[in-house]
Amino acid sequence: MGNFSYNKELVEKYSHLTRSVNEEYINIHPLQRGGILTPEAYKALISYGDGYSLCDNCLKGRIDQIENPPVVDFLKDVATFLNIDNIIPTAAARDSKRIVMQSLGKKFPKRKTVIIDSLAHYTTYLAAEINNLKIQEIPNKGFPDFEIDPQEYENVIKNVIKEENEKPLLVILTHVDYKYGNFNDPKPIGEICEKFDVPYMLNAAYSAGILPIDCKTNNVDFISCSGHKSMAASGPIGLLGFKDDFFDVIMVNSEIQGNLSSKSFPNKICTLLGCPPVYGAPLITMMASFPSIVKRTQKEMVEEESRKVNHVIQHIKNVKGITVLGKQPKIHPLTNIKTDCFAEIAERHPRKGFFIRDEFKERGIIGFSPGISKELKFNTFGLTWEQINHFTSAFLEIAEKYKLI
Amino acid sequence: MGNFSYNKELVEKYSHLTRSVNEEYINIHPLQRGGILTPEAYKALISYGDGYSLCDNCLKGRIDQIENPPVVDFLKDVATFLNIDNIIPTAAARDSKRIVMQSLGKKFPKRKTVIIDSLAHYTTYLAAEINNLKIQEIPNKGFPDFEIDPQEYENVIKNVIKEENEKPLLVILTHVDYKYGNFNDPKPIGEICEKFDVPYMLNAAYSAGILPIDCKTNNVDFISCSGHKSMAASGPIGLLGFKDDFFDVIMVNSEIQGNLSSKSFPNKICTLLGCPPVYGAPLITMMASFPSIVKRTQKEMVEEESRKVNHVIQHIKNVKGITVLGKQPKIHPLTNIKTDCFAEIAERHPRKGFFIRDEFKERGIIGFSPGISKELKFNTFGLTWEQINHFTSAFLEIAEKYKLI
Repeated sequence: MGNFSYNKELVEKYSHLTRSVNEEYINIHPLQRGGILTPEAYKALISYGDGYSLCDNCLKGRIDQIENPPVVDFLKDVATFLNIDNIIPTAAARDSKRIVMQSLGKKFPKRKTVIIDSLAHYTTYLAAEINNLKIQEIPNKGFPDFEIDPQEYENVIKNVIKEENEKPLLVILTHVDYKYGNFNDPKPIGEICEKFDVPYMLNAAYSAGILPIDCKTNNVDFISCSGHKSMAASGPIGLLGFKDDFFDVIMVNSEIQGNLSSKSFPNKICTLLGCPPVYGAPLITMMASFPSIVKRTQKEMVEEESRKVNHVIQHIKNVKGITVLGKQPKIHPLTNIKTDCFAEIAERHPRKGFFIRDEFKERGIIGFSPGISKELKFNTFGLTWEQINHFTSAFLEIAEKYKLI
Repeated sequence: MGNFSYNKELVEKYSHLTRSVNEEYINIHPLQRGGILTPEAYKALISYGDGYSLCDNCLKGRIDQIENPPVVDFLKDVATFLNIDNIIPTAAARDSKRIVMQSLGKKFPKRKTVIIDSLAHYTTYLAAEINNLKIQEIPNKGFPDFEIDPQEYENVIKNVIKEENEKPLLVILTHVDYKYGNFNDPKPIGEICEKFDVPYMLNAAYSAGILPIDCKTNNVDFISCSGHKSMAASGPIGLLGFKDDFFDVIMVNSEIQGNLSSKSFPNKICTLLGCPPVYGAPLITMMASFPSIVKRTQKEMVEEESRKVNHVIQHIKNVKGITVLGKQPKIHPLTNIKTDCFAEIAERHPRKGFFIRDEFKERGIIGFSPGISKELKFNTFGLTWEQINHFTSAFLEIAEKYKLI
């Protein structure tokens, strides 16, 4: 110690971390729309900003058993909302996947393969890798829709059983994928998994909080959700839902004992390392946003959000050199468009691919990936019609400026 | 779906989650003092409350490589501050321990034992359990100081080598423990670990951010820190520091590949499941508080904090039926006192053990564990002298009321 000093430069560097984008711009960042805080969450955030603020009235040493604020109620309410038996918070959706694979791996040590769709998020692959599991992908139909045929799940399950003489450990469907925002109906795959008696996980990181989800009706055994992605939570925070059938697999009470102290922690959940790291802002903001989440996943509001994104697409799809990727009409507002036209301009533009960001920023719109020009991802979730219209006009204006219409 | 409705009751339950304690009370909660946000962190929290707010300018798909806000600089600065080669953020200090045990376990698959002190946090035990490792405890000298003799580490290391014909996987020292707030000098144990060539981890969840720490001088290979416990971060967030010698053990790049898609993610760190879940409020508040952390761990301020807690102890230790637990004089302000006198009163008090909370709350002080009367834990870190004096007077006033002085 001692070679680090407190000085003016240090203060300058870290004491003014503000983000001016919140109010001045329309943010169409593909990852951010679903996580934007509700006013209620904002209020809770300010009250519960400190680290362990949620634990003031913890009587049982378990975050999931705190009654004030109403964590117990909340977890039950979310379970009802998603129609699954149990809900626990986790560090993030990726952690929910890691936990399920690890826990099932302990129950079924001979099963070595996880079946995933080929549009799964990279963390699905990494969760398998970290648990020393193999993956088998479900194909998609490629450009331009990248659609998945649910029947392929049956083929791949059969192949795994044939090749390994063991069932797959887990089957995962990405409910809405990160890349094209394609919505997949969980039902037919749930039926296939039931037929083969294979555990079935729905990765709902992009959907839970945006679209309605019913786990039981679709035979979903596990669901992973993301508070900061789609449930208006400050986060990071994830949820893991699971059926009662898997209660003992997930909720493993600690059995370790100190060889000298004889200390033991039977009340603590081993799988979660005790209380999952969501003690303050993450969980409280998720709770505060919950009524809005319930509201915005009702049929009428979901349909309205679909109308907005499809409206944008209708207007921009005829720009020369643009192809809308993924299934249409869109159900989830995360959208990916192939922009050969922009890629071509970027080649000769002094700002290269950054010109797109510049052009949109000039028009009050932010959220496109910096420097990327071949494909653009955006998300219109929660924008007002006024903002939708402005985004559409700005897009067409830029296309016109570069003589693409 | 469909059996959950948006209604007034739902809104009532979750839309007004506020915490009135912040300004009206003096908070002596043992876990909360070190995590209270600085004004700079508060400002950053409000700006970066949304989920992925930190990722606006992510160019490389890696949170540790974001330059705006200055994450890259920050991680380097913290590494310099703690005098260790590398720092990465993790979901929490417990996750840092889990990651180190898991990663070392892959490198040294035959080593099965982690040596820990008998005052280790329960998550140290659980991190071993979840990684299928055994633990061997270092004894402490028991009541009333619960002191640890560093030499015992040598004895236990020798025993493990003798019994298992393998070195221990890892040796952990809890720098300051959760129970008595005892400070342990990492140096002699670092020397022992060096002698036996065993990896050495310092769990600094309660100390990094409160006390100065120098990893290199003490031969510390790994350090775990907690932002929400001791570094004025909103969190939850942890840090993991490690020597260059272990870079390849911790920073494992993903190697998995899609069997159909050929997708791979060599840029992503497998150990962390990609970006660790600290994207928004956790990391930005920790960054914003960093200058204050540097300042408050300078010698004079640390000594001032010790003076405060020792002042309280000097005044309350003579109350009949009170024994101060742990080593004295105190270095770290987390304190545990045995309160036989209060336990006795609780037996006949209509509010049972809750009377203590009531009495202190009436005097504007909160943070004692609800219902507990046999032992009281408190933390004076960061209180003003005026608050210290008020806490001391309140304690004595209550003791007088119950005729204990």
